[in-house]
Amino acid sequence: MISALKRMVVGRRLANAQMGETLLPKRIALPVYASDALSSVAYAPDEILITLSLAGMAGFLFSWEIGVMVAIVVAVVVASYRQTVHAYPSGGGDYEVARENLGRHAGLTVASALMVDYVLTVAVSVSAGVINAKAMAPFLQGYEAWTAVGVIVFLTLMNLRGVRESGSAFAVPTYVFMFSMLTMIGIGLLRIFLLGQDLRSETADLIVVRPDGADDLAGWALIAILARAFSSGCAALTGVEAISNGVPSFRPPKSRNAATVLAMLGLMAITMLVGIIALANLTKVHLIDELTGTHYVDQAGNTIHSAATTVTGQLARVVFMDWFQPGFYIMVTATMLILFLAANTAFNGFPSLASILAKDGYLPRQLHSRGDRLAYSNGIVMLSLGAIVLVLAFNASVTALIQLYVVGVFISFTLGQWGMVRHWTTKLRTEHDPAEKRQMQRSRVVNFIGAMLTGVVLVVVLISKFTHGAYLALVAMGLIFVVMLGISNHYRAVARELRLTPESDRALPSRVRGVILVQRVNLPTAKAIAFARATRPTTLTAVTVAIDDDEVEQILDEWEEEDFGVPLKVIASPYREITGPFIRYVSDLRTENPRDVVSVYIPEYVVGHWWEQVLHNQTALLIRTRLHFMQGVMVTSVPYQLRSSGRRRDITRRASEPRIRR
Amino acid sequence: MISALKRMVVGRRLANAQMGETLLPKRIALPVYASDALSSVAYAPDEILITLSLAGMAGFLFSWEIGVMVAIVVAVVVASYRQTVHAYPSGGGDYEVARENLGRHAGLTVASALMVDYVLTVAVSVSAGVINAKAMAPFLQGYEAWTAVGVIVFLTLMNLRGVRESGSAFAVPTYVFMFSMLTMIGIGLLRIFLLGQDLRSETADLIVVRPDGADDLAGWALIAILARAFSSGCAALTGVEAISNGVPSFRPPKSRNAATVLAMLGLMAITMLVGIIALANLTKVHLIDELTGTHYVDQAGNTIHSAATTVTGQLARVVFMDWFQPGFYIMVTATMLILFLAANTAFNGFPSLASILAKDGYLPRQLHSRGDRLAYSNGIVMLSLGAIVLVLAFNASVTALIQLYVVGVFISFTLGQWGMVRHWTTKLRTEHDPAEKRQMQRSRVVNFIGAMLTGVVLVVVLISKFTHGAYLALVAMGLIFVVMLGISNHYRAVARELRLTPESDRALPSRVRGVILVQRVNLPTAKAIAFARATRPTTLTAVTVAIDDDEVEQILDEWEEEDFGVPLKVIASPYREITGPFIRYVSDLRTENPRDVVSVYIPEYVVGHWWEQVLHNQTALLIRTRLHFMQGVMVTSVPYQLRSSGRRRDITRRASEPRIRR
Repeated sequence: MISALKRMVVGRRLANAQMGETLLPKRIALPVYASDALSSVAYAPDEILITLSLAGMAGFLFSWEIGVMVAIVVAVVVASYRQTVHAYPSGGGDYEVARENLGRHAGLTVASALMVDYVLTVAVSVSAGVINAKAMAPFLQGYEAWTAVGVIVFLTLMNLRGVRESGSAFAVPTYVFMFSMLTMIGIGLLRIFLLGQDLRSETADLIVVRPDGADDLAGWALIAILARAFSSGCAALTGVEAISNGVPSFRPPKSRNAATVLAMLGLMAITMLVGIIALANLTKVHLIDELTGTHYVDQAGNTIHSAATTVTGQLARVVFMDWFQPGFYIMVTATMLILFLAANTAFNGFPSLASILAKDGYLPRQLHSRGDRLAYSNGIVMLSLGAIVLVLAFNASVTALIQLYVVGVFISFTLGQWGMVRHWTTKLRTEHDPAEKRQMQRSRVVNFIGAMLTGVVLVVVLISKFTHGAYLALVAMGLIFVVMLGISNHYRAVARELRLTPESDRALPSRVRGVILVQRVNLPTAKAIAFARATRPTTLTAVTVAIDDDEVEQILDEWEEEDFGVPLKVIASPYREITGPFIRYVSDLRTENPRDVVSVYIPEYVVGHWWEQVLHNQTALLIRTRLHFMQGVMVTSVPYQLRSSGRRRDITRRASEPRIRR
Repeated sequence: MISALKRMVVGRRLANAQMGETLLPKRIALPVYASDALSSVAYAPDEILITLSLAGMAGFLFSWEIGVMVAIVVAVVVASYRQTVHAYPSGGGDYEVARENLGRHAGLTVASALMVDYVLTVAVSVSAGVINAKAMAPFLQGYEAWTAVGVIVFLTLMNLRGVRESGSAFAVPTYVFMFSMLTMIGIGLLRIFLLGQDLRSETADLIVVRPDGADDLAGWALIAILARAFSSGCAALTGVEAISNGVPSFRPPKSRNAATVLAMLGLMAITMLVGIIALANLTKVHLIDELTGTHYVDQAGNTIHSAATTVTGQLARVVFMDWFQPGFYIMVTATMLILFLAANTAFNGFPSLASILAKDGYLPRQLHSRGDRLAYSNGIVMLSLGAIVLVLAFNASVTALIQLYVVGVFISFTLGQWGMVRHWTTKLRTEHDPAEKRQMQRSRVVNFIGAMLTGVVLVVVLISKFTHGAYLALVAMGLIFVVMLGISNHYRAVARELRLTPESDRALPSRVRGVILVQRVNLPTAKAIAFARATRPTTLTAVTVAIDDDEVEQILDEWEEEDFGVPLKVIASPYREITGPFIRYVSDLRTENPRDVVSVYIPEYVVGHWWEQVLHNQTALLIRTRLHFMQGVMVTSVPYQLRSSGRRRDITRRASEPRIRR
């Protein structure tokens, strides 16, 4: 039953044939990467407005300027990554760029930042998706965190099942999102400027009162809020870098196509961002998060609770609701879906990154073998648990989570771009073709500007958000950094210790002394004896430890009867203990024959349930563990398959079958 | 540091020389068994009085009769067990008596009951000890449960350290307890009857008001309370049966000496029980447990809170306090200590029972090897956790815990005595000596009376306590019963499946095909190759799975350079996965050579820390697990000891060293 349940939840294993490494045409590549890059446009304007609301009504005056600044950063970063895409057609993410050009520690810093960011991507995207859902389903009010957890669990199960998001699964909601977003902005501007209609959002007439109830902020306090609003707005950049990992999956000419898609995405993101903010300004959208302490009052000064929770929702309502209601629902649903899809991409990206890190020796080596379903599943579950903890700790508040989010993105931007500057500098040294040289110098300038700008943004983000939560992200990154460095140092030390040198001992042991551990005279023992005899050791002795006189008597009788052709030695154990006397016997054998190797044969029962495992092989396990510490001893398990083992064989096979994903 | 801490808490390993199987003279045997058997006299009268208090003042009138009835049961049970001691000089506990004479299920029932009772012995004895401590240290009020947990943790650590309670450690507090208890009773009666003093306990003038504040109970309701009081009083019998397990440790003539000690204990228990109740009657001791809903009022009708919590404490105060204050403290301290000692005996008894049950195949087999420190420690920790849960769940209330306690004792009494009746009946069939026959018939009558009486008491206990908590004990026993039966059935099924029959395949595999798993070219691999070559298999191939082109390139280069004399085969793995392709290779080898055995050599890294374990051998583990399901394959680990392994070798050795206890 449990097996059936597991099968139902985790799904059948995937046949290799299902793989098919398909190369993406641009029309499919665009939505695949857009879900990650464009989805952030769905909450970045919201976070700008919410942060500005902390300054009171005065704050909203600056949304336009902040939107433009974020758009400029997007433009510069996209330009910058277009260089990366050309320079690393093999798909060099920021991690590889930083590691190759800036060294091990820089690479590791980027990797730590990316790992934290993957967790935050899931938490933020799902939380934002749930807020969007609330625009349609107000009854979710108060259950945001648990709804978000539900969505994360669903995504986790889908990914554990190995459901492969084909390009088209991405394409439909993403294209619907892009289309309806641009349509909404277009129609909105059309109605205002061409038709001269006075579109007023549902929150247009509300007045925002500051947390402490005081007057609007001004001076340095206002600037601090503007800096934070800008920092939150920079969340719009998340996902842009993903494309630089994916160059190999583009159709040739790979780099050119990737660069084109990147430019399209950048253009789209800027258009949407500026368009949303323009429309929000024109329709006088106000947005607050009551958790930040702000609240609405109406013209008469009465406190008002508004259900309007997103900019997209408010805009869709004012643009569509009075003439084409489905437009509102399509817009909000598409926004929600693209956000969930964005969260889903992290479930792919995290194990990919882990695999690369494992290959470089920063994570347990078996994670490198990406096909391994166990390693893959572990990564998915870890990511999922991290995101669930965050969602519950911050009550699915995008405004709170975003304080942690942007730091990592900009650490990886800055180091990645700075690595590119180094990359071009190195290449320029060996390049002699003047045309190529000019091209590289131009690229270096672009990346230099990118590195400077993202560096400045990183500083702004750190200063404006440090105490608001960014420090938590930094602490998490620091921990991951230290652990990965420790793992790497360990692997290096072990590799040094295990290196074959001309001085290494290459002497072949002269003889093999076989020892069979006998606990009962039965089929597994008979099999172990047969196999041990087949290897023709120099000497072969069966050994049993006497912990019970009656039992020994019986074993001796049966031994005589079976006539295995191997002498049976009984070792006394006055204290009814098996391990110690047996280990001492092997140890003595070693001492007497120091140039020989001792081969210990242990019959093992292969059973079908975990609890059967508890009931068998425990002594064998203990003995094997202790023999492992002895020089010159090898331990041979001779497995005997009980009938019940068939069941577990299938499970074990399934668990270690390759897991194919793009 | 962790190792040092563990060393400090769990202690150095015990040298075998410390063993010394000493036989007990009667003067040491008496206190060893008295701590268990007599300690219950310290709380049985209390529980009788507390239960009677539920009937109001009328209830106390019956304490005398109930005390006498319990004393009669004690006398009968002691007489009954004297027969067991003679019939099973090998130390047949109730479990063995029931199993041998009444069959498997009866034995298992007794075993389940005993296991639950061991846990309850710890919980009840420690809780009772803490209540006694309160007579001296009233500040413990309100912290009973946590004090009891502290005592249990202390006992657990002492037992994990392997502190051996020598006979003399038992002797001192037990003799002090016996002496001071008898002295107290003697002086008390002396002062009342010879000196004609009017001794009045501190609660003599208090009036007990029933839970519902109504009048004193009468009729059936009173009878129900009397039955429960009697049932609780029967707790005085716990520990009497322990001696029947210990016959082999007596000095010869073993059975006679054991029977003598048993008689002495019985006499002592009855004297104390009747003495305490008599003195309590004469000094008008009242005792309530406010948790049961009763409370005291004084003559004027005002509610009074009395700190007097135990009968022993009240008696010691009235007998000693006005002329010899140390007498009070000695009495209370000795009572407390003997109760803690009684709890301690369970820490010995539980693993002993587990060992016997494991030998009979009802518990995992490795528990049979009693010397095994791991198995022993697991038993101690399980017992301790169970007792802690009970103490916390019942807030260290003896009155509440005792509702669960007596059931198991009487199940094992009844089945044990009934088994003895069967034992004699069987023996009488083959016995022809008339003198012996008469003796046996007499014994059978004694055991029959014992079985009948304990059976009746069991029914009374079940009826009067079922809803008060006894059902919980029954549920726990049922669960343990089912689990043990399941384990036993499993072992039997496996033994049947693994039996060597004349039809069993005894063919020797004709050739050995050696396969070495290579993941890197380093010292462990070189060692594995050297060892594999030493076994001279028919063919020997090194196999590496190509998950990374650069790595394969490097391995091939190094292989060529090293010239191991073994061909290296590279298996393709398009999906970067090691396990599957390797397993398929071995499987193909099997298919091509069905009569041969495949011997797979896996180099393993022996490391020093658990986290190093996570970083190594994971692929090897996965491959070994899957190979185990394949017929005709044996898996040889060739361990390579890294420098860090020295540390863990010591820990591992210590953990599996024998653990010597009596």
